Amino acid sequence: MSESKDYKPALANDAVMKASVPVPENFEEVHGVDYSKPESRNSRAIDLVKSMKTMGFQASNLYTACEIINEMRRWRGKNKSEIPKVEWKGEFDENGNQKATIFLGYTSNLISSGLRDTLRFLVQHKMVSAVVSSAGGIEEDIIKCLAPTYMGDFALRGKELRKKGLNRIGNMIIPNENYCKFEDFMNPVLDKMLAEQEASAKKLSANCMDDDAPVWTPSRFIDRLGKEINDETSVLYWAHKNQIPIFCPSLTDGSIGDMLFFHTFRASPKRLRVDIVGDIRRLNSISLDATRAGMILLGGGMIKHHICNSCLMRNGADWSVYINTGQEFDGSDAGARPDEAVSWGKIKPDAHMTKLYADVTTVFPLIVAATFASE
Amino acid sequence: MSESKDYKPALANDAVMKASVPVPENFEEVHGVDYSKPESRNSRAIDLVKSMKTMGFQASNLYTACEIINEMRRWRGKNKSEIPKVEWKGEFDENGNQKATIFLGYTSNLISSGLRDTLRFLVQHKMVSAVVSSAGGIEEDIIKCLAPTYMGDFALRGKELRKKGLNRIGNMIIPNENYCKFEDFMNPVLDKMLAEQEASAKKLSANCMDDDAPVWTPSRFIDRLGKEINDETSVLYWAHKNQIPIFCPSLTDGSIGDMLFFHTFRASPKRLRVDIVGDIRRLNSISLDATRAGMILLGGGMIKHHICNSCLMRNGADWSVYINTGQEFDGSDAGARPDEAVSWGKIKPDAHMTKLYADVTTVFPLIVAATFASE
Amino acid sequence: MSESKDYKPALANDAVMKASVPVPENFEEVHGVDYSKPESRNSRAIDLVKSMKTMGFQASNLYTACEIINEMRRWRGKNKSEIPKVEWKGEFDENGNQKATIFLGYTSNLISSGLRDTLRFLVQHKMVSAVVSSAGGIEEDIIKCLAPTYMGDFALRGKELRKKGLNRIGNMIIPNENYCKFEDFMNPVLDKMLAEQEASAKKLSANCMDDDAPVWTPSRFIDRLGKEINDETSVLYWAHKNQIPIFCPSLTDGSIGDMLFFHTFRASPKRLRVDIVGDIRRLNSISLDATRAGMILLGGGMIKHHICNSCLMRNGADWSVYINTGQEFDGSDAGARPDEAVSWGKIKPDAHMTKLYADVTTVFPLIVAATFASE
Amino acid sequence: MSESKDYKPALANDAVMKASVPVPENFEEVHGVDYSKPESRNSRAIDLVKSMKTMGFQASNLYTACEIINEMRRWRGKNKSEIPKVEWKGEFDENGNQKATIFLGYTSNLISSGLRDTLRFLVQHKMVSAVVSSAGGIEEDIIKCLAPTYMGDFALRGKELRKKGLNRIGNMIIPNENYCKFEDFMNPVLDKMLAEQEASAKKLSANCMDDDAPVWTPSRFIDRLGKEINDETSVLYWAHKNQIPIFCPSLTDGSIGDMLFFHTFRASPKRLRVDIVGDIRRLNSISLDATRAGMILLGGGMIKHHICNSCLMRNGADWSVYINTGQEFDGSDAGARPDEAVSWGKIKPDAHMTKLYADVTTVFPLIVAATFASE
Repeated sequence: MSESKDYKPALANDAVMKASVPVPENFEEVHGVDYSKPESRNSRAIDLVKSMKTMGFQASNLYTACEIINEMRRWRGKNKSEIPKVEWKGEFDENGNQKATIFLGYTSNLISSGLRDTLRFLVQHKMVSAVVSSAGGIEEDIIKCLAPTYMGDFALRGKELRKKGLNRIGNMIIPNENYCKFEDFMNPVLDKMLAEQEASAKKLSANCMDDDAPVWTPSRFIDRLGKEINDETSVLYWAHKNQIPIFCPSLTDGSIGDMLFFHTFRASPKRLRVDIVGDIRRLNSISLDATRAGMILLGGGMIKHHICNSCLMRNGADWSVYINTGQEFDGSDAGARPDEAVSWGKIKPDAHMTKLYADVTTVFPLIVAATFASE
Repeated sequence: MSESKDYKPALANDAVMKASVPVPENFEEVHGVDYSKPESRNSRAIDLVKSMKTMGFQASNLYTACEIINEMRRWRGKNKSEIPKVEWKGEFDENGNQKATIFLGYTSNLISSGLRDTLRFLVQHKMVSAVVSSAGGIEEDIIKCLAPTYMGDFALRGKELRKKGLNRIGNMIIPNENYCKFEDFMNPVLDKMLAEQEASAKKLSANCMDDDAPVWTPSRFIDRLGKEINDETSVLYWAHKNQIPIFCPSLTDGSIGDMLFFHTFRASPKRLRVDIVGDIRRLNSISLDATRAGMILLGGGMIKHHICNSCLMRNGADWSVYINTGQEFDGSDAGARPDEAVSWGKIKPDAHMTKLYADVTTVFPLIVAATFASE
Repeated sequence: MSESKDYKPALANDAVMKASVPVPENFEEVHGVDYSKPESRNSRAIDLVKSMKTMGFQASNLYTACEIINEMRRWRGKNKSEIPKVEWKGEFDENGNQKATIFLGYTSNLISSGLRDTLRFLVQHKMVSAVVSSAGGIEEDIIKCLAPTYMGDFALRGKELRKKGLNRIGNMIIPNENYCKFEDFMNPVLDKMLAEQEASAKKLSANCMDDDAPVWTPSRFIDRLGKEINDETSVLYWAHKNQIPIFCPSLTDGSIGDMLFFHTFRASPKRLRVDIVGDIRRLNSISLDATRAGMILLGGGMIKHHICNSCLMRNGADWSVYINTGQEFDGSDAGARPDEAVSWGKIKPDAHMTKLYADVTTVFPLIVAATFASE
Repeated sequence: MSESKDYKPALANDAVMKASVPVPENFEEVHGVDYSKPESRNSRAIDLVKSMKTMGFQASNLYTACEIINEMRRWRGKNKSEIPKVEWKGEFDENGNQKATIFLGYTSNLISSGLRDTLRFLVQHKMVSAVVSSAGGIEEDIIKCLAPTYMGDFALRGKELRKKGLNRIGNMIIPNENYCKFEDFMNPVLDKMLAEQEASAKKLSANCMDDDAPVWTPSRFIDRLGKEINDETSVLYWAHKNQIPIFCPSLTDGSIGDMLFFHTFRASPKRLRVDIVGDIRRLNSISLDATRAGMILLGGGMIKHHICNSCLMRNGADWSVYINTGQEFDGSDAGARPDEAVSWGKIKPDAHMTKLYADVTTVFPLIVAATFASE
């Protein structure tokens, strides 16, 4: 074909054929699984995750999430022997070396799901330092000790289910009977808690709300539940056992709230009181005391904001992993990227951070298998 | 073309050309705006919304949301004269006729946005009966009375912003100075509140936590803020004025929490206590007392679940409008459809309900213009 | 309370009370609807949209979308009298002044919805210069001239619907009978088209595929459908009438494809051919010839990429409005922000552009009422 | 505490304590990973996936996706010896037993990502029968043989990138230089293709568009690219080698379109023609001939609809796995659940089907490791 025919519109040609600068040396090439290697067959978690590093999109964020979690886990500072006793704050490993304080937040639905076993694993083995969950994330852990949750389907009809007393959570089903069992469990516990409150009120009288008075807060309430349930399948049990505090300022927003509501009638004119000021003091103090702070935030809403906000107290977390399905376009905190938290001082500008856009159940089993449960 | 050539594969033909049953008479045809009519030019809200009824997808849900809101607003039951005084519960109009109790829930970001003016309009004109918001939805209302929020951009960099002390919420900016002003406002208020608590403790002594003791709860706390701010641009001011309770169990999850945290040092060994049990009693009682109950839920998370859960107390809301961007696939309550709440007894099976999938700011101004602000 | 008590942890105080720089003068304050004004009642579209400017989140993007659309509509360049005839390319208004070439893209579902009336309005009144749609966006326009689409429900069960021959599109229903009617309409048209192809083949012989041969392309095919349907409710009819080309490279991906498939049996050994090279030449030439180019992209997928890619030919569009629900996190072009297109040269770096995250049906009626249909 | 105090509001009590029916025997309990087992450490893909079965939410859908894929892979029908030769249609295994025809669809971005290696693995080992992709999914496979794609960041600015000639796809970067190399590759190929077309036109003359004429279609075009590139890292190479057709009706919607556009100037007055009717005949025939049909659809848009629509020809696919991030609320086909396709006859009502809501890159490596690459 003769050259003379090869006329191309100059504007289009210049736009399409625009020259590019040489690629910087540190640019990493995109590639994926190498199926010529035996480890690509029925792969192990660590191999899978490694192959995701340069896969792009959220696969790369999944890899980064694992990397950050491993950094949190492995970070060590000074030894107790090097620091004055008055500065023995935050977390230490068994050798007395400073380690990171790891905040774990999860929404209620994850405790309803089979991820509860994973969350319990983390608390049981003291892999996290403090937990924030929403009310359902507290009560469903207890309820699951009393009766099972079942698999269902997103499309089951509410009307039919309500007739049968079957409550739906996504594609899972909780028989209402479970909540009746929960009431049977809760009532004596609430009675005991009220009795203790009354004993303190009698003893301390007008000072019964002082900062050192044994006022009930959500975290003390939750600790008591963990003690009472006494069940090794429970997150709350292990949190109690390992003295890992679980925070939940909106503790009344669910079945525990129903029980507390009913209990106000039962207890009248006395009333159990649950104070949220004590807990914000406690949570923020953990953040302040942390030598380094990492956040693992599974889901959005209060649990995400609450841990971020506590890390503002220390001028930002050092590591941050968000895993959720929220989007930023509607301006919700639930959907905000880590970079928004940087603007607030909730994450340090030079922190290692990522947001992995995913339903937690699809990715967290793999992530845990490649990090906390890799050995 | 001869017939003999018109051979079509029978399997494909039968599948593609499958006969359909006659369309039922009550089927409504899809159509949209009639641009031949003058009201299609620079349309008014009601005309626009009417044209969306048969437009399909979320346009139809937007229409339905307006229809449901109008039903909530217009429903009237018996006159006070027809019912014994002991049953004078719930809401009544100026003629003494029963009307629906309307629960309004909104997330924090909506108060940060310009929708605050719309939310205030609803509270100012007593168009809603009770409100649930998250902590930011409380404090930002007050802070906006002290200093403005500004337009920004989703893509502004956190690192640069933090250096400048500019906090980002989506595409908006709040100078950190605003929070310093907030502290100046809050400290004397908290001091007064603590003083009142101490006075009660002295007076009631060991009975100071009884059900009739003036213990601080989030709703009482918020009411006090509304009184103290004394500013007609404020939602809280009008809520105080009109005695519309605003609930927020997780009141400590934000700047108010920061102030309360700081105040624990300031007040020591005394401590302000904020009890969440009193509020669950109060919220659930409003639900129980309602003759009919409607829910308008703007956003997800705690505010959505908390109102739904309170409506369980009355075996379900009678009307329900969800507007949010959440999806059900991850099993979050935030993304759950109304039909999931039906399974729990939080919405009546025969209630008129819809979920409108939208960023609230894009649709609520139109919805309010076509309903609450239509006359 | 004495000062000495007011000890706050310094780290926390410094972080929370970080000073902010003075706010730049050009910062715009966030505020919303002014309900003290009469135009806030049953508002008109333009007033509603104006109030959204400083509302934040997607409300502000909705305002910006309107602003950009008005800029596209109102831009005028030189008069024909000022430019040599050989440069009379692109669009001109009735006074012979250069105006912007406006590309409109929409996905199939929007033609199925009641928005079809709005899309037809734009084409009927020559408010756009060229259109790209997907196959369903072509055929459903014709089918709606033959029989209606009906309102349905997202939760109707596929199994029951298939038994009845009712096809679901979101919350709408199309009886399968409509496709039988479509076949009746299409067969004679396809026969005629084949006859014309054969006549050309006979006439031009080995030159029948040359660049000036009347080879069928999707845009010519669609133009013919618009001529044959001869129905004023149809987008295609007005596109034919006004000589506004409609492009659809994947024309076979739907019911037209089914008909073409069947027609290959009917026509054998002859075969209708539809060439996509002719159309890429035609579309890109429109982009090249445009004095200024604006894009209005409703939905994602091919229709979005195809218009963007054609604007690369001119080194970028001058205005760009995306309205869709796609997210960028999965790296899909459907979810990509305008800024990704800037990197490719598909949008000019200094173009006025926005992405409005919304189901088109919820916002486009309002946008059109405030722009194209404002007068 | 005396019973008399235990008064609860009856309405609330009845609603909260509603009895539930006994749980059916076939209900499966929700539970997750059993960390007491050694296989929970650095787990293998199959173990991980098994533990997701009863985890709920999308974890359960991920399990189901694997189950369905294994069913597709393992299904076997009659042996060739049992059926008349004229019915030897569809796919057979090496023993002459009927097996399922597996349609694989993927969007362009997945070829840009590291998943390309996984997609190539499937084609290389003849694990799928036919492929549908969008234009970028074709050309990027070739371009990657010429020069690499690099990791980038979602937040890189378009303006800066364009200056440097670096094109962004999500968090990846493609230097524009790559497209210049692509042009160098394509021009001689297009010249050859045109020469072949012209040879046929000369030979067949007026019959050169008949059904048995060697008219270029997208699938033939793509096959030629696979042959020419001759590179074992390429999907197209293996598709050519293994005679697995790759369909792409909108082949002109991308860089190939740019090259074809330029080539129209180069070739004038001759012109390469690419016919889409031939391909719809070919694709639908594969569907019709399939003994059983399975669909694996990665992403949304045309690639999803096109495979579904082809399966309508056989009155529905027998297995279907969707993996994408689309939502149904906006009525897009991209976001439609499999049940919508059932209403159209594109999936059989009793087919085994699921939709996994996820960015494909986060889940498909695990899914493939537990299925296609498990042995």
